[in-house]
Amino acid sequence: MKATRNQYLMDEDDVPTHWYNILADLDVPADVRRARPATDEARSGKLAPNIPLSLYRGSVGRQRFVEIPAEVREQYQTWRPTPLIRARRLEQALETPAHLYYKYEGANASGSHKLNSALAQAYYYKKAGVEHLTTGTGAGQWGSALSMACHALGLDCTVFMVRLSHAQKPYRRVLMELNGARVIPSPGGTTQAGRKLLADSPDSAGSVSIANAEALEYAQTVANGRFCVGSGENHVLLHQTVIGEEALRQMKAAGEFPDVVIASMGAGSNFAGLAFPFHREKLRSGADTRLVAVEPEACPKLTKGRYAWDYNDISGTTPMTKMYTLGHTFVAPGVHAGGLRYHGAAPLVSALYDQGLMEAVAYRQKPVFEAGAFFARTENVVPAPESAHAVKAAIDEAVKAREERSPKVILFNVSGHGLLDLSAYDQYLAGDLEDHAVSDEHIAASLAALPDPGPVGVTS
Amino acid sequence: MKATRNQYLMDEDDVPTHWYNILADLDVPADVRRARPATDEARSGKLAPNIPLSLYRGSVGRQRFVEIPAEVREQYQTWRPTPLIRARRLEQALETPAHLYYKYEGANASGSHKLNSALAQAYYYKKAGVEHLTTGTGAGQWGSALSMACHALGLDCTVFMVRLSHAQKPYRRVLMELNGARVIPSPGGTTQAGRKLLADSPDSAGSVSIANAEALEYAQTVANGRFCVGSGENHVLLHQTVIGEEALRQMKAAGEFPDVVIASMGAGSNFAGLAFPFHREKLRSGADTRLVAVEPEACPKLTKGRYAWDYNDISGTTPMTKMYTLGHTFVAPGVHAGGLRYHGAAPLVSALYDQGLMEAVAYRQKPVFEAGAFFARTENVVPAPESAHAVKAAIDEAVKAREERSPKVILFNVSGHGLLDLSAYDQYLAGDLEDHAVSDEHIAASLAALPDPGPVGVTS
Repeated sequence: MKATRNQYLMDEDDVPTHWYNILADLDVPADVRRARPATDEARSGKLAPNIPLSLYRGSVGRQRFVEIPAEVREQYQTWRPTPLIRARRLEQALETPAHLYYKYEGANASGSHKLNSALAQAYYYKKAGVEHLTTGTGAGQWGSALSMACHALGLDCTVFMVRLSHAQKPYRRVLMELNGARVIPSPGGTTQAGRKLLADSPDSAGSVSIANAEALEYAQTVANGRFCVGSGENHVLLHQTVIGEEALRQMKAAGEFPDVVIASMGAGSNFAGLAFPFHREKLRSGADTRLVAVEPEACPKLTKGRYAWDYNDISGTTPMTKMYTLGHTFVAPGVHAGGLRYHGAAPLVSALYDQGLMEAVAYRQKPVFEAGAFFARTENVVPAPESAHAVKAAIDEAVKAREERSPKVILFNVSGHGLLDLSAYDQYLAGDLEDHAVSDEHIAASLAALPDPGPVGVTS
Repeated sequence: MKATRNQYLMDEDDVPTHWYNILADLDVPADVRRARPATDEARSGKLAPNIPLSLYRGSVGRQRFVEIPAEVREQYQTWRPTPLIRARRLEQALETPAHLYYKYEGANASGSHKLNSALAQAYYYKKAGVEHLTTGTGAGQWGSALSMACHALGLDCTVFMVRLSHAQKPYRRVLMELNGARVIPSPGGTTQAGRKLLADSPDSAGSVSIANAEALEYAQTVANGRFCVGSGENHVLLHQTVIGEEALRQMKAAGEFPDVVIASMGAGSNFAGLAFPFHREKLRSGADTRLVAVEPEACPKLTKGRYAWDYNDISGTTPMTKMYTLGHTFVAPGVHAGGLRYHGAAPLVSALYDQGLMEAVAYRQKPVFEAGAFFARTENVVPAPESAHAVKAAIDEAVKAREERSPKVILFNVSGHGLLDLSAYDQYLAGDLEDHAVSDEHIAASLAALPDPGPVGVTS
């Protein structure tokens, strides 16, 4: 293998055969592992089972590896394995002795890693007799992925898209419609939850939490409909580990093991997808690799949130989960990284963080776009605003390595491309980008509205 | 190799070491091989040499293979070889016994094959002491590629972008600006040519021919500036053969040889890039593979143009070349496939066509978008409107194969992605797409304005 290699490609036969379940290697109490039904209606079973048992089962036990169904793996093989790239031009531009590697998940047509779980979920739901999937989407990457997966498997698809993103990112809407999905801006007039929100705040920018509340309500009005989500749940994190499993093998091909693993943090499936397999490998080898989640200062659930029981949607319909949260009533300022505006962190990532097994860092929007533009110019890949958070952290680590004269190995995930976010880069270039952060008072107010988990019986 | 393989990937060490010069295998008179200076000013040498000798030399002789400079090959290795994909889901959807393969050139950040020549040209111009490149671009794929190449090699870059595309495709403008290029809508007020055009037709949609005239004039006003083009010239076609050279090896890995090779046709570098190496292989093996160029009915230079001497730009400043042309004053209707709106065909493609060694077919805009949308839904790749022309022809061939029960092997080039053209797909979905064709009278009028090559001395 030559010394100047850029691309670590693998053959489609090398697509992993198994997902990795971190519960085999992480001590999580049973009641935290599962969600708690929130309402009487939910406890009565009227809302359950929303998730097919086949989809749920693999992600709550302690089985280390879960086999990827043949049909899902065949779909993966149409675009996976994704490349691992040595960012040599970025290294040169930063004059750093660090070795920078990025896993690139943006080359599939949905534009991001979200397709990994969308295809798996569509498969399991279809097998369970579901004919119509509904969901909420932020910037639209999850919605794009689900619409493609539904089209591929012959399911109907309705996507509630955060109103701000619906306006900011029209091309993602077209991408979904091109795949036959119905796309509804949220909050909107289709659901009770949406109408209530609009009545209270007619100018609401929306949020993933609101969109999910609408999609959840809407699923009950269509034949054989189910609501599904693109992050947070154990099974979504499970599906995404295909990223880290590939990266482990590609880093081995590169003859290196990362000192730092970095990924952006929405609800956590992207971070978990890359980092969880490295957690296992750390335990095995004793390496002191750092796992770093990167969030926006506009939605700092890990760096400023509380580890508590909370709802996943703004209406409080969903089961409660124990997680780092800013409160389910928290609505983040309208940063372009719509996929990172969710109020909570996945229970499994939250447990990992609570136990001090990973780190978190938060950035403002402008330095994130500066890093994204720098990456676009050097590596010729325009990162999605979400992914640019990981790029920013990787650049900071590389600059620190330069100061420390350390040939540190840095691995980060470019989870999606930003070609449909170029209007945001246009704003950045024009100097028109806002630099949102949220005040401690704002956070305190939504934390004060956290639900009391007391009356809810522990289901474990 | 398993029977269901989708992706034929190659390692970056497999990037070809040589471009292929078709002049070794195609009988083209010397005076057709080179361009004729058009004006007294050009003949006086004031405009020459626009093209560095090092760039020009390899593409006018009969040397079969031209070595790719190490620096250019290293750049290629950051994203090449591009994948060859077996379009199995498209085959299934069409219920065709044909085997469909596509070479995918859209995965690099510039979005298309254009980067192959942009990097090579930037390299040769820089070596010749040039510090600033100017160009005209249609839909913006060439401009995006050149801006990236210039940024990578440290050259300034000014792009005159067809006014219609500048309005229709704002994201491509941002992509160029992100790479530090200056982007000027054409026709515009910066140049004499632009001002004259605007005075005559204030609502002009522009054309590549006009944009080139402006870029050519502007290059003379900046220090160490040169005008360069993204298609047509022998050396551009030469650079693009890296596509076909890779495809030859990938088809061999698939154990098949194409019966039909299909590519969309603007000025011809995309078509030549894929088809020329297969022309050589046909001569060697005696295969009766068909080479098919696909153009829009809105700009039918091969199917309705004349093989004649003509200018490459609307002002008549550029040297004349013998080519299939609709006349340099022809302005095509505003189809979304801006890259196919050029009035002429490359001299080498024109010679191949004149000698009956290739075919051409023309389609209207709506069926092309229908094919593009169908491809997006089945193969999960959104093709650029230009590339969708090749997709349409490939689908038609596959349907014919179904009727003939023939397991024909069809190879086509998806030269670029259409993610920055989703507004056009939006129009298609909404039923708002126009279905332009040009009348025979319109073509006759511009053909009547063809220049008289008589007074110009043959330079061979």
